[in-house]
Amino acid sequence: MKYYLSLFLVLVLSISQAQSIQSPSGKIDVNFKLSGNGQPTYSVNYKNKPVIRESTLGIKLKEKPALDSNFEVITSKTATFNESWKPVLGEQANIVNHYNELTMSLIQKETNVKMNIIFRVFDEGVAFRYDFPKQNELNYFIISDEVTQFNLTDNHKVFWIPGDFDSNEYEYNETKFLDIDNSKINMNNGIGVKSIPGNYVVQSPLMMKSASGLYLNIFEAAVVNYPDMHLNVDVNKYKLTAQLVPNAIGDKVYLQTPCVSPWRTIMVSDDARDIVGSKMILNLNEPSKIEDTSWIKPMKYVGIWWEMHVGKSTWDFAGSQNAQNSVSQELIPSGKHGATTENTKRYIDFAAKNGFDGVLVEGWDVGWEDWFGNWKEDVFDFTTAYPDFDIAAVSAYAKSKNVKMIMHHETSGSVANYERHLDRAFDLMKKYDYPAVKTGYVGKIIPRGEFHDGQTMVNHFNFVARRAADYKLMVNSHESSHPTGYSRTYPNYIAAESARGNEFNAWSVGNPPMHETILPFTRLLGGPMDYTPGIFEIKMSYYDKNKTEQVHTTLAKQLALYVTMYSPIQMAADLPENYEKYPDAFQFIKDVAADWDESKYLQAEPGDYLTVARKTKGKESWFLGAITDENARKTQIKLDFLSKGKKYKAIIYEDAKDADWKTNPIAYKIRTIEVTNKSKINLNLAPGGGAAISFEPIK
Amino acid sequence: MKYYLSLFLVLVLSISQAQSIQSPSGKIDVNFKLSGNGQPTYSVNYKNKPVIRESTLGIKLKEKPALDSNFEVITSKTATFNESWKPVLGEQANIVNHYNELTMSLIQKETNVKMNIIFRVFDEGVAFRYDFPKQNELNYFIISDEVTQFNLTDNHKVFWIPGDFDSNEYEYNETKFLDIDNSKINMNNGIGVKSIPGNYVVQSPLMMKSASGLYLNIFEAAVVNYPDMHLNVDVNKYKLTAQLVPNAIGDKVYLQTPCVSPWRTIMVSDDARDIVGSKMILNLNEPSKIEDTSWIKPMKYVGIWWEMHVGKSTWDFAGSQNAQNSVSQELIPSGKHGATTENTKRYIDFAAKNGFDGVLVEGWDVGWEDWFGNWKEDVFDFTTAYPDFDIAAVSAYAKSKNVKMIMHHETSGSVANYERHLDRAFDLMKKYDYPAVKTGYVGKIIPRGEFHDGQTMVNHFNFVARRAADYKLMVNSHESSHPTGYSRTYPNYIAAESARGNEFNAWSVGNPPMHETILPFTRLLGGPMDYTPGIFEIKMSYYDKNKTEQVHTTLAKQLALYVTMYSPIQMAADLPENYEKYPDAFQFIKDVAADWDESKYLQAEPGDYLTVARKTKGKESWFLGAITDENARKTQIKLDFLSKGKKYKAIIYEDAKDADWKTNPIAYKIRTIEVTNKSKINLNLAPGGGAAISFEPIK
Repeated sequence: MKYYLSLFLVLVLSISQAQSIQSPSGKIDVNFKLSGNGQPTYSVNYKNKPVIRESTLGIKLKEKPALDSNFEVITSKTATFNESWKPVLGEQANIVNHYNELTMSLIQKETNVKMNIIFRVFDEGVAFRYDFPKQNELNYFIISDEVTQFNLTDNHKVFWIPGDFDSNEYEYNETKFLDIDNSKINMNNGIGVKSIPGNYVVQSPLMMKSASGLYLNIFEAAVVNYPDMHLNVDVNKYKLTAQLVPNAIGDKVYLQTPCVSPWRTIMVSDDARDIVGSKMILNLNEPSKIEDTSWIKPMKYVGIWWEMHVGKSTWDFAGSQNAQNSVSQELIPSGKHGATTENTKRYIDFAAKNGFDGVLVEGWDVGWEDWFGNWKEDVFDFTTAYPDFDIAAVSAYAKSKNVKMIMHHETSGSVANYERHLDRAFDLMKKYDYPAVKTGYVGKIIPRGEFHDGQTMVNHFNFVARRAADYKLMVNSHESSHPTGYSRTYPNYIAAESARGNEFNAWSVGNPPMHETILPFTRLLGGPMDYTPGIFEIKMSYYDKNKTEQVHTTLAKQLALYVTMYSPIQMAADLPENYEKYPDAFQFIKDVAADWDESKYLQAEPGDYLTVARKTKGKESWFLGAITDENARKTQIKLDFLSKGKKYKAIIYEDAKDADWKTNPIAYKIRTIEVTNKSKINLNLAPGGGAAISFEPIK
Repeated sequence: MKYYLSLFLVLVLSISQAQSIQSPSGKIDVNFKLSGNGQPTYSVNYKNKPVIRESTLGIKLKEKPALDSNFEVITSKTATFNESWKPVLGEQANIVNHYNELTMSLIQKETNVKMNIIFRVFDEGVAFRYDFPKQNELNYFIISDEVTQFNLTDNHKVFWIPGDFDSNEYEYNETKFLDIDNSKINMNNGIGVKSIPGNYVVQSPLMMKSASGLYLNIFEAAVVNYPDMHLNVDVNKYKLTAQLVPNAIGDKVYLQTPCVSPWRTIMVSDDARDIVGSKMILNLNEPSKIEDTSWIKPMKYVGIWWEMHVGKSTWDFAGSQNAQNSVSQELIPSGKHGATTENTKRYIDFAAKNGFDGVLVEGWDVGWEDWFGNWKEDVFDFTTAYPDFDIAAVSAYAKSKNVKMIMHHETSGSVANYERHLDRAFDLMKKYDYPAVKTGYVGKIIPRGEFHDGQTMVNHFNFVARRAADYKLMVNSHESSHPTGYSRTYPNYIAAESARGNEFNAWSVGNPPMHETILPFTRLLGGPMDYTPGIFEIKMSYYDKNKTEQVHTTLAKQLALYVTMYSPIQMAADLPENYEKYPDAFQFIKDVAADWDESKYLQAEPGDYLTVARKTKGKESWFLGAITDENARKTQIKLDFLSKGKKYKAIIYEDAKDADWKTNPIAYKIRTIEVTNKSKINLNLAPGGGAAISFEPIK
C-alpha cells in the first residue's frame, strides 16, 4: 500500500513538471517545463507552429543563490477569466479581459525558496510573470538579473530602437534580426542624454514580422516597483534576453515578498490589427484605485510650446545668457520670452474661440536660463513665476473664458528636487485651478547615477501619478520611462510622451514618415501618447529661410494623427496664427473627439500604414484617420462600422493630388459627401500623407 | 621705458607669489606661497615654531584640468575683521569674531581659471577655503578630489575615530600618530552601518597634542553644498590629506561658480581651554538667515526613549515580528509598545510636575516592525500613528499641562522617502503644535549608493533645517553628518547627535569614561550635541540580571554632563520612576539651565578632564560641571567667575567617597555651602566620576 502511494505521488510530480495551456480561441498554446537541471522554461506556439522556442525563465539574486535552477513543481493550477470593464477614458467604452491562466508553483531544492510562474494566455498573446509569495525563506531581496529569454524561430523583420537606459526618443530602425546593431545608427539625432550599454541591446516593445507573415510583439505590462526591461540581442541565435535597467550601483531591483515581477508579454497574430488594437497590456494591470474619477476628463489643448521649438520665442526670460544661480540674481529680459501674461491671454482667447479645453504654458517658471545639460539639482522650484507671467491674472482670465490652464513642470531630470517640491507645486495648481500638469524629464537623472528607466524612476513616475490623484490632478509625463498600462490603475495618469515626439521634426533630423505608422504597434500599447500633432506650417523655412528641417508629413496626415494616435489629451500644437490661415482644415481639429465608445482598426501594417475609425464617447459621430509612410497609398475604406440605417455627412480632409511630404506638404482638399454603412470611400494618400474624415449623423 | 615697465610688473608678481599673515595676537602666522610648479602651498607657525609644515592646496576636477598647479598670483589682499554677535541660543550672549584675512587671487596658466584662496587667522587658529569666482572659464564643475594637506611636525598624540562615510558613532582611540590604524580597533561596537574606505583614514575634527604640550585640532567649518572632509593618514610622514566623501558614482562635489569650499581649520594653542572654548567654527559660518527667531527656544525634555534602550518596551507595536508591508496589513500588538497614549500621558504628567518643557515620543508611527537593516525605501510616512497612539488626544493633554510634544522622524536612512513626505510631516507637527523634531538616520542611505557624509546628505540635513524654518520648527538630528556651525545660519537647527551618544552604553561595549572628556574638543566644536545624559540607574543588570552593560559613569558625572556638554535642547534621559527614587540628585537636572550668558572653561585636558562654569541666560545663577575619565581626580576650583560682592548658595552634587563608575556608580552626596567669588571648592572626582554645582545668588 505504501509503495503504491509513493508511486502515485511520484507520478503526479513527474507529470506536473510540464504543463500546457491554450488561449481561449485555441490558436496559441504555451508549454511550461522544467529542464534537466530544474530550470523553468517555456515555449509558445501559434496555430501549432513554434513562435518562441524553449526559453529559460528565472532570476539571479545579489548575495543569495540564483532562482533559475534546481526547482521542482509543487502544484500547477489553471483558471479561466472573462470580464469586461469600463475605462474612465479610452479607445472603447468596454474592454474585454478574457484569458486562461496557468500558475506553476515551484520550490527550489536546498534553499526551499518558493516561486510561482503565472501564465495568462489571451487570444492575441501570452503574458507571464514571476510571483514571490511571502515566506520565511525569502523576505527582502535584490535582483541582479533576470534570465528570461525569448528564443525566436527565424530572422524576422524587426522594428527596433537602441536599448537606452535614459531615452526612448529614437526613430525606428526596420531591419532583419541579424542586422540589429546600435553601432550602425546615426546618433546625431537630437537626443540630449543617451545611456546605451552596448551594440546588441534594444528596447521593448519590440515589433517583428516573420517571413510567413506572422506579427510578433515582445513587451511588458504592469511595471510597478521594478525597472524597465530592455532586451539583449543574440543576433545569430535569434535570441532575446531580459536586460533590466540597473541603478547607480549596478543593482536591478529591490523587492520584499510578497511581490511580483511585471508581466512579460508576447503578442502574436497573423493579422497585424489584432496587435495594434490589443488591450492586453491594459488588461494585465490592476483596476483603477481611484474611486471618484469624475474629475478625470479628456482635454484638447493649445499652448505656448511650438513657438519655442520653431525659434519664435524662448522658454527662458533672459534669453541665451547663463544666469548662474538665477533665482537670487536679477534677470535681464531678452524680450523673446514666450510665457508672458499677454501671450498667454492670446492663447486663452484662441482656445475659447475654438472650443479647446486647455492652454499649456511652458517656460512660466524661473530656472530656464541654464536648465539643461549641467546636471543641476536645484533648477526649478515649480512655484516661482517669471516676473512677466502673472499666474493669478492668467488663471482669472482663463476662468472668465471657461478655459483650463495646464501646468508645466520641467524637472531637468532632477527628480530629487521635484519630489522635494511636489506638494507645494500641486498646492499651487489647486490654488489656481489647473486640472492637469505636463511633466518633463530632459536631462541626466538626480539622484545621480540613476537612469530614466530604472526602478527608482519607474517608482517616481508612478508616485507622481498617485500623489497627483491625492489632489485630483491629471498627469501627462514627457521623457518618462515607457508606460505599461499603469493608466488603468491610476487613470489620472492621462498620457505620456516616452517616445520620439513631433517636436523632433522642428530642430533635428526629425521623424521619418513611417514613424507614426509604427508607434501604435509599440509605444502606444502601454498607454496614450501625447504626440502633439496638428502642425500646419510644416517646413521650418517658413520661420527662417536658412532652416531645412520640416515635419515629415502632409497637412492632411497631421489631421489623421488625431485619430490614429490615441490620447485623451490632444494638443493642437501649431501656432494660433497658423491655424487661422487654414480655418477649413482646422475645423477637423476643432471637431475631433478625444474619448471614444468604439475603435476599429481597419487596416494595419507596421511601418507602412494604419487606418482607424473611432466613435465619439456618448455620441453618434465617428472619426477616421488613415496614414501612410513615405509611400503613396490608394485604398478603399468600407464604412460598415457606421450604424445601420443612419445617414452621415462625411467631411473628407485629404492630400491634394500633388501633395508630397517633401515637396508640397500643405496641399490638401476637403470634400463633403453623404454616406451610410454600406458606402465605400476611396482614399489617395500622398507620400508621407494621410486622410481624416468626420462622420456626423444627419438628423 | 618699455623694458623697465615689464621689469616692474615682473617684480610685483614675483614678490606676491608668497604672502604671510598673522593672528591678531601675533602668536600664529600663516605663510602662503606658490611652489616651483605653481602649486599653492601654506604653512603655519605658532609662537614662531612650525605647526603645519609646507602643505599643498588645490583640487582635482572631473573631465577638466586639475586646479592644483600652474597658478600665478594676480593680487593678494589683507583685511582685519572684528565684531561681536549675539547667538539666538548659545554658550554665551556675545561671541567675538576677530581675525585677520588674506585673500590670494590666483589664475591658472593656459586654462585662465581664477581661484582664490582665503585665509582667516584667529587667535586660536587658522582657517582657509577655496573660492571660485563667477567666470567664463569655470561654470559647472565636478570635484574629484581635494589635495589639501596638513603636514604635521611630529608623532603627536591623536584622538581619532575611523574615517567612516556612514557613521561617526565611534569611541575615540588615543594613540600616537604612527599607530593610527583602523584594522586594529574592535568593530563589534554596536554601529549598524559602516563604510570605512581603508585602514589609514580618520575623521575630522581630529584632536592632537604634541610632545611639547601644544594642542592641535583639524576640522572644517561651513560645510554647505559640499561633502564632509575625512583625512587620509600617511602615518610615517605625519601627513594628513583631505578625503572628500564620494557619491554613488564616485564623484565628490558638484558645484557652479560663484562658489566656495568649506573652511579647513587648524586650531592651535598651548592651552587646551582655548580650543575647547573656541567659537571659531561658528564664526566661520554665515549669520542667521532667520529674521524672526522668537520661536527658537531652549528645551529640557523627557521622553519615551530610554525605556526601549533598556528593553522595557519596544519602538514597534507588533514586537519582533516582521510585518511585511506593515501599513497595509493588520498588526497584532505585542503589548510591549512604548509609545502608547497612556504612557505618553504619564511622561507628560512627569514633565509638567518637574518643569520640563517637552516630551519626546519615539515609536509613535507605523513602520517600526521592520524599519532597520533592509534598505527599505517606503518605511515610514511620518504621518500615520499606531492605533494605540492618539496624537490628537496626546497633544490636547500636553497643551492642558503646558508641555510641548517633541516629534520623532526616524527615516531609516531612506532620505528620498523622507523628503517626499516632509511637507506633510511638518504640516502634522503644526496641526498638533509640536515645536521641534528629532530626526534619525539609522541605516544605509536611499538614494542607494549615497553616504551619510556625502554632499547629497549634507545638503539634505541643511535642507531639513531650512524647510523646518519655513514652518518655525526646530530640528535635532541624529545620525547626521558632523555639524560644522550651520546652526549659526539656521539657529532652528538646534542640536544634533553625530557622535557616539549615551544610548550605546545600554546595549553595546558602550562609551569609555574618557568619551565625554574628548567630545567637547571634537564633535561639539561644530555645534550642540544631544548626548542625552542623566542616567541614574546606571547598570543594565537593574533591568535584567543577565545584562552586564552599563553606562561608564557615576551618577554625579551624569549631572555634570548637563554643563560640560553644551546643548540648548537637553534630555533627562532616564525613566521617570528612576528619577523619583533620587529626588535630591534629580533636583540638579530640574534646576540646570540650557541657555547661557557666559561660559568659562576652567580646566581642560582632552581625554582626561574638563571643568566648565556657565551663567544662566538672563539670570545671576551659575552652574558648574566637572568630569574626569577613568582616573579619579582631586581638584580645587576657584570661584572667581562669580560676580563680585555677591553671596551664593552653592549646592554641590558629587561622588561619594567610595563611588566608582564600575563598582559603585550611583553613590553620590550633596552638600550646600555659601560662597563668594573669592571662595574655592575642593572636588574629589571618582574614577569615571564628576561633580555638578548650582550657584544661586542669595538675595
